Amino acid sequence: MMTNNISEIVNQLTLKEKAGLVSGKLYWFTEAIKRLGISQVMMTDGPSGLRKQADSSDALGLNNSVEAISFPTAALTASSFDRRLLSNLGKHLGIAAKANDVGVVLGPGVNIKRSPLAGRNFEYFSEDPLVAGELGTAYVKGVQSQGIGVSVKHFAANNRENQRFTVSSEIDERTLREIYLAAFERIVKKASPATLMCSYNAINGTLNSQNKRLLTDILRNEWGFDGLVMSDWGAVADHVAALKAGLDLEMPGKGQESIDEIVEAVQNGRLSESELNITCRRILSLVNRYSELNDDGKISYQKSEQHHFAREAAEESMVLLKNQDDILPLSSQEKLAIIGELAVKPRYQGGGSSHVNAFQITTPWEIGKKLYPEASYAQGYSLDNSEFSDKLIDQAVEAAKAANKVIIFAGVPESAESEGFDKTTIELPAAQNKLIRAITQINSNVVVVLQNGSAVTTPWISQVRAVLETYLAGEAVGEATWDVLTGEVNPSGKLAETFPMRIQDTPTYGTFNANLLYENYREGIYVGYRYYDFKEIPVQFPFGFGLSYTTFSYQNLKVEQLPNQRVAISLDVRNTGKRVGKEIVQLYVANHASQIEKPAKELREFAKIQLAPGESKRIRMTLSRRDFSWYNEQTHAWQMDNGVYEVLIGKSSQNIELSQLLTLQWNKLVKEKISGNTYFSDIIKRQDLTSSLKESGLDKLINSLENSNSNAQLLENIPLRSAVMLGATTAQVNKFIRMANN
Amino acid sequence: MMTNNISEIVNQLTLKEKAGLVSGKLYWFTEAIKRLGISQVMMTDGPSGLRKQADSSDALGLNNSVEAISFPTAALTASSFDRRLLSNLGKHLGIAAKANDVGVVLGPGVNIKRSPLAGRNFEYFSEDPLVAGELGTAYVKGVQSQGIGVSVKHFAANNRENQRFTVSSEIDERTLREIYLAAFERIVKKASPATLMCSYNAINGTLNSQNKRLLTDILRNEWGFDGLVMSDWGAVADHVAALKAGLDLEMPGKGQESIDEIVEAVQNGRLSESELNITCRRILSLVNRYSELNDDGKISYQKSEQHHFAREAAEESMVLLKNQDDILPLSSQEKLAIIGELAVKPRYQGGGSSHVNAFQITTPWEIGKKLYPEASYAQGYSLDNSEFSDKLIDQAVEAAKAANKVIIFAGVPESAESEGFDKTTIELPAAQNKLIRAITQINSNVVVVLQNGSAVTTPWISQVRAVLETYLAGEAVGEATWDVLTGEVNPSGKLAETFPMRIQDTPTYGTFNANLLYENYREGIYVGYRYYDFKEIPVQFPFGFGLSYTTFSYQNLKVEQLPNQRVAISLDVRNTGKRVGKEIVQLYVANHASQIEKPAKELREFAKIQLAPGESKRIRMTLSRRDFSWYNEQTHAWQMDNGVYEVLIGKSSQNIELSQLLTLQWNKLVKEKISGNTYFSDIIKRQDLTSSLKESGLDKLINSLENSNSNAQLLENIPLRSAVMLGATTAQVNKFIRMANN
Repeated sequence: MMTNNISEIVNQLTLKEKAGLVSGKLYWFTEAIKRLGISQVMMTDGPSGLRKQADSSDALGLNNSVEAISFPTAALTASSFDRRLLSNLGKHLGIAAKANDVGVVLGPGVNIKRSPLAGRNFEYFSEDPLVAGELGTAYVKGVQSQGIGVSVKHFAANNRENQRFTVSSEIDERTLREIYLAAFERIVKKASPATLMCSYNAINGTLNSQNKRLLTDILRNEWGFDGLVMSDWGAVADHVAALKAGLDLEMPGKGQESIDEIVEAVQNGRLSESELNITCRRILSLVNRYSELNDDGKISYQKSEQHHFAREAAEESMVLLKNQDDILPLSSQEKLAIIGELAVKPRYQGGGSSHVNAFQITTPWEIGKKLYPEASYAQGYSLDNSEFSDKLIDQAVEAAKAANKVIIFAGVPESAESEGFDKTTIELPAAQNKLIRAITQINSNVVVVLQNGSAVTTPWISQVRAVLETYLAGEAVGEATWDVLTGEVNPSGKLAETFPMRIQDTPTYGTFNANLLYENYREGIYVGYRYYDFKEIPVQFPFGFGLSYTTFSYQNLKVEQLPNQRVAISLDVRNTGKRVGKEIVQLYVANHASQIEKPAKELREFAKIQLAPGESKRIRMTLSRRDFSWYNEQTHAWQMDNGVYEVLIGKSSQNIELSQLLTLQWNKLVKEKISGNTYFSDIIKRQDLTSSLKESGLDKLINSLENSNSNAQLLENIPLRSAVMLGATTAQVNKFIRMANN
Repeated sequence: MMTNNISEIVNQLTLKEKAGLVSGKLYWFTEAIKRLGISQVMMTDGPSGLRKQADSSDALGLNNSVEAISFPTAALTASSFDRRLLSNLGKHLGIAAKANDVGVVLGPGVNIKRSPLAGRNFEYFSEDPLVAGELGTAYVKGVQSQGIGVSVKHFAANNRENQRFTVSSEIDERTLREIYLAAFERIVKKASPATLMCSYNAINGTLNSQNKRLLTDILRNEWGFDGLVMSDWGAVADHVAALKAGLDLEMPGKGQESIDEIVEAVQNGRLSESELNITCRRILSLVNRYSELNDDGKISYQKSEQHHFAREAAEESMVLLKNQDDILPLSSQEKLAIIGELAVKPRYQGGGSSHVNAFQITTPWEIGKKLYPEASYAQGYSLDNSEFSDKLIDQAVEAAKAANKVIIFAGVPESAESEGFDKTTIELPAAQNKLIRAITQINSNVVVVLQNGSAVTTPWISQVRAVLETYLAGEAVGEATWDVLTGEVNPSGKLAETFPMRIQDTPTYGTFNANLLYENYREGIYVGYRYYDFKEIPVQFPFGFGLSYTTFSYQNLKVEQLPNQRVAISLDVRNTGKRVGKEIVQLYVANHASQIEKPAKELREFAKIQLAPGESKRIRMTLSRRDFSWYNEQTHAWQMDNGVYEVLIGKSSQNIELSQLLTLQWNKLVKEKISGNTYFSDIIKRQDLTSSLKESGLDKLINSLENSNSNAQLLENIPLRSAVMLGATTAQVNKFIRMANN
């Protein structure tokens, strides 16, 4: 542990030592320098559970790691919309890390779900940057409250897995700012994460690891990030260029090769030693905070307690998508058939670097059998084989015939969904869809429980009574699923992503993975519900949608302007059903003020509350200037326009309960400067220009425009500089411009 | 008329004379220089009829012009898909111009119909660049065959009217080349037009009038254009910058002001006199060809003959969109009600610069009354008022009750559709939709005749028996419409644009006119059917669709490769009905070879043939390399990839009758060079690399990848430069790259 001033220590480092410091030691460590008492920091994968590797190291989840709790993946926890829950998840991860001498947890992943085909969606929160940013912030604060650092990843615009090391994300600036950087910006500003992880891909042709605009201009200079940037594992193509751009730590380390390369660059002048010093200071600062973890023996790492939290996190997040005739919750008297191999071999986590050596897996079949000892089981399909088997289906049909209700576990097999490659379909395996249809033919009380990392289609939706989305629910999947099915827990999750009707309807259809070398973000800001909403494309389940075993009503919306460009929004939410339940209230804003491309509405705040039957509570939320702003790529600044906005309160993005218009005049009114490019249509609107028009002689022209019949619109759509088209002289125009601007 | 060598004359010009020459004389002329016998050239608006102004001049169709034939607009003539027809139209225009001492006709307009809301669509041919380019080529050849020049407009990417003087079209290079420049390129290469007209807008921030890349690099250097570029009227913002970029003639002229500006620029060195000389040579060359028209008295300009051609052009182009139970053609015995003010005041041309002082308008009511003396008429709605009138509807209902068939004339009023501003809806006026519904309630034999400049919605489509699309049909609208309704002429037009179900379904919804300063071409190459087809979005009437009073069958498709990278396609088409008719056969190509964004298929050839009942003819078409190519914006070149293509023969874009796969190996096989960015997945595919893998020691790595279970896809999606992730050393990788490329 260093106690001296970091700058002093940097002064004592030799060039070779500095060069050694900016490259990791093998897979999981920073380089220690014993001579100066500089220890190492250990980093470990694991947004949803610690993956601390013991012996053979790799970055891809291939080799074994120490036993740890497998928490639900972000796709599920995001559906909780619960900041407190994510903060607690972070705390548990921090405790596990500390107990394992791990200084930095590599997570959370906050990339935007741009396409449901993206292979790594299960590790990410949402298609919406507010959800990803708020839940990411809570998670980071939770981890860091335990004295453990995080690495927020993957920075940035890393939205496909295919060719992920080389592909360039071609994105316009507004889209980048509003959609793909926004979650990172929020987390950096609100939670001060210890590190960010720079992603593999390029943006507009420049590899992120060498992107000074991204890593220095935006991240540090604009947002004020003062932590460290490490590379994703293997992302560095040119270490010197990366250092110059603002990347601090190359992972994994390349040993002597890396040292030689840096030393040579300093010696031949490609890299200045002062540039290297900046990076060394950042690394030493990280070492200072996270190398010796001050475990004073008080730390309480109870795996059974963490397992219990994994269960809680899952059941607070699961999304009830359909519940016709209140077929759920199940009573204790049901005669159940439990069908589907996923009940026995549940998919509870994703593949790749987030893969955890789970502590204690409870399967749906094991728990179901305990609760319903007479329940039957049938495999229904084979996870290893997407071809359907008549035999398996027949067995399942037999089992279903004897039951009063059938619970089918369906989902996407791990072989089809992992880090490292993208999916090619959002359909469930054909054998499963066939199974579900076969069962619904002979039993009308079918409940489908889904296990999958990302949105899937549900072509049998009208034939089943209920659907419970459990995503990848972590090691307590069995307990959590039954807690919700039986009503032990009232489901309260809502979708943090849209479930489309078909892949053709998705905003990136035809562009996603179409090119090997680059990815065109043609849809721009129209991602997720921003697209479906605006284009009025029917979806299977909209963003923000989820059912409960109770019902809620919303009343008394009040929208008030506060000082300092803030707006207070409040409303009453009442539990109108018969069970305790939790409701996620969504606040969207529609911009009617700006003359730009814009979604129909955007989520700007959300809240989750618990209500007893009949209970009512007042929800209070506050919006600020940024919530009414868009990113102007011509001025390179966030812009808020005076005008009319609409506040919409919804149960989901498509179920708006209350709304109110709001006129904001937060900008000083400045008269638009007149130039040769000013159109007559704009001049006509301006009362204050009457005398200038008269004196310049353009008034006659204006009068003749206004008096002409059907062509007025044509004539007014001409700028001053082309007024010769209307019979004016350049002298008149110049005189008018001079007078008008005085 | 100059007889001397142009360069010699340029040498004799003073600087002031040169400066005078590059700016027009007032509205319609080039500057004459009597001292040297340089005459003037007159230019005149009129893609669909001559608009030669007599007294007061303007560029917007406000003042009267000489009487001339109003031919159908391009929206209608394009639906003929008939090169011969467009060539004849050009010839007639050329004759009219010559007879009026006009040297250059300002047309055709070949911009792409990107949005059905674009105000000027009626003047343009198609959403497809092949159709626009082929029909534009025929038109240009027709005009120029009469010794008259054309000005192909508006070059380029001028796809909206709002803010058209200043808006920047933000387009990627591939889209620009494949969609927005392609028609211009075809016409330049195939028809050598005398001039092009540079449009008002900017592309990617540079005003077209100052865009050297557009006006010089692409147009002249790549395509070999040797004509003159004039500005659209009022498009020049900086004349000197425009001259330097390759614009030759500023229109209209600014007189002394312009001369002073050019002289000063040469004197202060901003413009070199040699640059000015190049432009003067081009203008003198135009003068040479088009100032004295050599009318040797043989010219025969018969307006009645041209009127007859206007009728033929219209009836050969009208599109029968629905004809349930063969309600059409009408017999001579019908008891008709003719409803709708457009029957009496037809919309037969567009507003703005293409507006013609028509020679002899025949209205549908006037002709209908002649053919059916007992037909009744009811106004139905008011063109001046979009509010519906109960009285007018009631009168129409009464008239309809007494008729066995009802012909309703519906359409878009001129006030809603013109050059100079864009539309805000694709719906017919509410009063008309209400009228149609009311009539269908009491009479089940309703025929709707549409008059409109661009696609409209037809929400009552299932309630009417027939729909005839007549667009803006020119002055013979009355005769042509009845010729088709009565079967005097068998309709043979097909849509050159898609009719969508609703505006939300269009590819530019949300971006079109969203920003004042720029227009994002987010949909890229997915324009028109390229979008609907690919995204599988239902449309009301697809591109290429149109009915006939007879039927056709397609057989015996044969696809053969020819020498010199050409493909011959042939098929038999048979008239299987009872009337003589014409069929438009469409040849689409689907690219299954290239790993890029690509439409499901693209139109690459079309043919129109006439067949007697029972007659069969063999259609022969040839494709060349370019028809299988895409524009690679990284190499800045057209690229054709070896692989599988599909030839599809359709009656419309959604009615494919015949298809055949085709494997093209036109490129020499070149082994892909191995670099650090080469992925293991690509290396594994290459048999020839086995020994290099072995010698470099990477073979063990590959074996372990291939033997790993579910994660193989993840591991293979790693490039050589990141092989350290898989346990390789940089030395091994470098050795392998060296060996592999040898």
